Amino acid sequence: MAEATAARRRSRGSGGGAARRAERTAISTETAKYIERNIPNLEILNEEALEIIETNAEQVLEEIGVNFVNNPAALDRWRDAGADIDGERVRIPKGLARQLCSTAPSTFTQHARNPSRSVEIGGRNLVLAPVYGPPFVHDMEKGRRYATMADFENFVKLGYMSKWLHHSGGTVCEPTDIPVNKRHLDMLMAHMTLSDKPFMGSVTEPSRAQDSVDMAGILFGKDVVQQKTVMTSLININSPLTFDDVMMGALEVYAQNNQASIISPFIVGGAMAPVSVAGTLTQVMAEVLAGIAYSQLIRPGAPVIMGAFVTSIDMNSGAPTFGTPEAAHITYGAGQLARRLGLPYRSAGSFCGSKLPDAQAAYETANSLNMGLLAGVNFMLHSCGWMEGGLVASFEKFVMDADQLGTLHHLAKGVAMDENAQAMDALREVGPGGHFLGCAHTQANFKEAFWRSDLFDYKPYETWSEEGARDTASFANARVKRLLETYQKPAMDPGIEEALQAYVAQKKESMPDSFT
Amino acid sequence: MAEATAARRRSRGSGGGAARRAERTAISTETAKYIERNIPNLEILNEEALEIIETNAEQVLEEIGVNFVNNPAALDRWRDAGADIDGERVRIPKGLARQLCSTAPSTFTQHARNPSRSVEIGGRNLVLAPVYGPPFVHDMEKGRRYATMADFENFVKLGYMSKWLHHSGGTVCEPTDIPVNKRHLDMLMAHMTLSDKPFMGSVTEPSRAQDSVDMAGILFGKDVVQQKTVMTSLININSPLTFDDVMMGALEVYAQNNQASIISPFIVGGAMAPVSVAGTLTQVMAEVLAGIAYSQLIRPGAPVIMGAFVTSIDMNSGAPTFGTPEAAHITYGAGQLARRLGLPYRSAGSFCGSKLPDAQAAYETANSLNMGLLAGVNFMLHSCGWMEGGLVASFEKFVMDADQLGTLHHLAKGVAMDENAQAMDALREVGPGGHFLGCAHTQANFKEAFWRSDLFDYKPYETWSEEGARDTASFANARVKRLLETYQKPAMDPGIEEALQAYVAQKKESMPDSFT
Repeated sequence: MAEATAARRRSRGSGGGAARRAERTAISTETAKYIERNIPNLEILNEEALEIIETNAEQVLEEIGVNFVNNPAALDRWRDAGADIDGERVRIPKGLARQLCSTAPSTFTQHARNPSRSVEIGGRNLVLAPVYGPPFVHDMEKGRRYATMADFENFVKLGYMSKWLHHSGGTVCEPTDIPVNKRHLDMLMAHMTLSDKPFMGSVTEPSRAQDSVDMAGILFGKDVVQQKTVMTSLININSPLTFDDVMMGALEVYAQNNQASIISPFIVGGAMAPVSVAGTLTQVMAEVLAGIAYSQLIRPGAPVIMGAFVTSIDMNSGAPTFGTPEAAHITYGAGQLARRLGLPYRSAGSFCGSKLPDAQAAYETANSLNMGLLAGVNFMLHSCGWMEGGLVASFEKFVMDADQLGTLHHLAKGVAMDENAQAMDALREVGPGGHFLGCAHTQANFKEAFWRSDLFDYKPYETWSEEGARDTASFANARVKRLLETYQKPAMDPGIEEALQAYVAQKKESMPDSFT
Repeated sequence: MAEATAARRRSRGSGGGAARRAERTAISTETAKYIERNIPNLEILNEEALEIIETNAEQVLEEIGVNFVNNPAALDRWRDAGADIDGERVRIPKGLARQLCSTAPSTFTQHARNPSRSVEIGGRNLVLAPVYGPPFVHDMEKGRRYATMADFENFVKLGYMSKWLHHSGGTVCEPTDIPVNKRHLDMLMAHMTLSDKPFMGSVTEPSRAQDSVDMAGILFGKDVVQQKTVMTSLININSPLTFDDVMMGALEVYAQNNQASIISPFIVGGAMAPVSVAGTLTQVMAEVLAGIAYSQLIRPGAPVIMGAFVTSIDMNSGAPTFGTPEAAHITYGAGQLARRLGLPYRSAGSFCGSKLPDAQAAYETANSLNMGLLAGVNFMLHSCGWMEGGLVASFEKFVMDADQLGTLHHLAKGVAMDENAQAMDALREVGPGGHFLGCAHTQANFKEAFWRSDLFDYKPYETWSEEGARDTASFANARVKRLLETYQKPAMDPGIEEALQAYVAQKKESMPDSFT
């Protein structure tokens, strides 16, 4: 690394460093546009393999079928559509589910209240949203604890300030200090008022989905919501092959109101699906075919995303494992299946099993994020902040992962090949044995040339050591504090905010607290 | 994650867990076969882009040329081959370098003294070798310090015991307590006696390359070495466009003796190459064309690897940065260029800039390792243990990275599509709402189904917490100790070992110590 040391030395004299550093450490609420890929996807399955999986999935639907639980209306809809109903079991003749799926749009726009932050979901795009669902939060000072509404609001603020995050997400953590039957109101309020990025609705009861639609009506205008998609919500399938009434009830509300759903098997391979990649992909395909077909029975043309939350299991301890090669295989394969089905695809995330924002967390997360980009994912939930198998939302890991999402943006750009990028004049100017730091081409291009972390340590060892020899989690802890200290609420029509507050107050008063 | 918790609970009763755990924590010197990819490469450059870069590279060679420094014999060789010589500048007419490269083999075998550990370099294969070159070592107890021969031997032992490492490498760290002019002898001795995996020769002086050939002659038999390749050594190009006499002298010795060289630009983009991906790829291509052509002027058919050590620079501090998207673009692009040239390709590694084996180190490393696999790299030097921009070899990071190399093996396997993998009987057996942990297919397949870390923590939070709430570096520290405590030297013919010792002793006596 003699060369690297020399490079560092040479650049000292180039001037303007302090000004540039100040410029870059300033806190910004700039948000990058969603990723538009200019690089290919990695396609690991060949045509024959894809056809086998698709054929087997249709076979599963026809022969084994799926259960729609506690949902007589769903059974009626399926019967009318031509499926065979036996108790709660729905057997779907070959070809029917795929045909029903054909009315779902291949791309859709999710509108944000700040129109410059609306996102296009599908095609070659990738939209990034934060962690979803953890009952616990963790930071390096207070450790692991049950999440509260104050934590929730802080995560929404961090998401709003993250340059590489396009979406505010949904249940960034579970605010366990608020009654279960009321917390969706406070969560929606936080997304709607503390951020201006797109967000997700509640799915824990059909009535809470309806509250989400009603509050969105206040925020965007009631007519607007019927015409435009302003929420994308997460409908998990209870794998294997089971669609419960709570999730389906929420799906029904969203589809009826033209709002988007991610229809997503939740699979730890070996437990909720066969202990093989091909078998898991078959089950994923069968489940999403049935689920998406059902969404189109509710309202043909309702926007949906084909989801696949898939990971492997440690067959010794039963623990789910993350960032593993088998999870990557499934994520790549499901992406190919989604593209053949012509639907937006949700998968991958900042997955890890680690209890700390340490090296394990980062290896597992980086494996999963890279895989998600190359698998053609269109909507990546959990793209930052996930820890301990999804039980914990980590403050430090949130900003660490969010910083890494910048690498996906730059990777996806591909390689510029114009005359300036070819840099033949620079090669002529410098010649053998010279260096490029001061040449005209470098001066003209260095600012935009290379992605740079806003978090990682790039200082010489001696400086780093004198400044406390801190690790990444420590830098991240400082960044979390700095962001939250400088957070400023985005502007909002006070009348709308008051109307939202009144809706929440009225709803909360209308029912007793419930914590179950 | 209610499902995950349930999965963990369900598996408790399955029995045999303790036995399986004991089996897996046993220390093993099993080494996996080098990776044979069954997944495609990611090709980010289209045909037009590749042709522009190739054309520009030929233009650079003809118009700007390269310098062969302090090497009159090289200038004579180039003149005889048809190049234009002006002082030390060699201008190579279009087409000449490419034509000379055509005699280099597209794949070659590097033989190990244990024949089951010989490696095939090229084609769809990936051979993994450890970190190379750091003057410092680091561990979590003693911190950062100058490397010694004892450290060197410990790294060779760890490499020998790493299941996913196919190659013992070369200068795993610089043994700074041994005179500069003698340390190559001790390093070779360590690789030859403490491991039975393939290794690299010395390149710091032509005479030391000759010592490497002579010692390999003792180990393998003098005739064998002339017929078979038993060393692959690292020849760095002094970018931009400069070939110094020390490296070229070593290359000449190896090529003359049928030993392999990696001919590798060493580039921090923005300093030693233009601040653009296309410009850097052009320079890489020009440099390797000239270097490999030169190897074939020495001995047509000499085995070589097209190398590309490329990374980006932080234009603020001048520090090299790692795991960045621009480095990935260059690595993907150079892989495509190598395949079009029909040569084995060396790039990527466990690159990071971090001073600790922390999250920054792991994100950057995982980015680079994944990229290396998908870029079609055939020989990955630095695949484990690299820290702080290559200034430091980290003991903990060595075993952390080496564990992650397992994910590359499993990823590369691709997806099995046979009847067993399709798992239709498992789907039939379990049906909607069931679980797969106990089903016949799972019982028959779980052992081989999923990659599992030998290092990461998969325990429930409570257990992990009771056991000390340790981070990855702490687990790795324990693993390093356990491996070194249980290390056993591979068997060796005592006569050969004595002959090697005698050679080293005689060489050391023949010259005074030098520390410069």
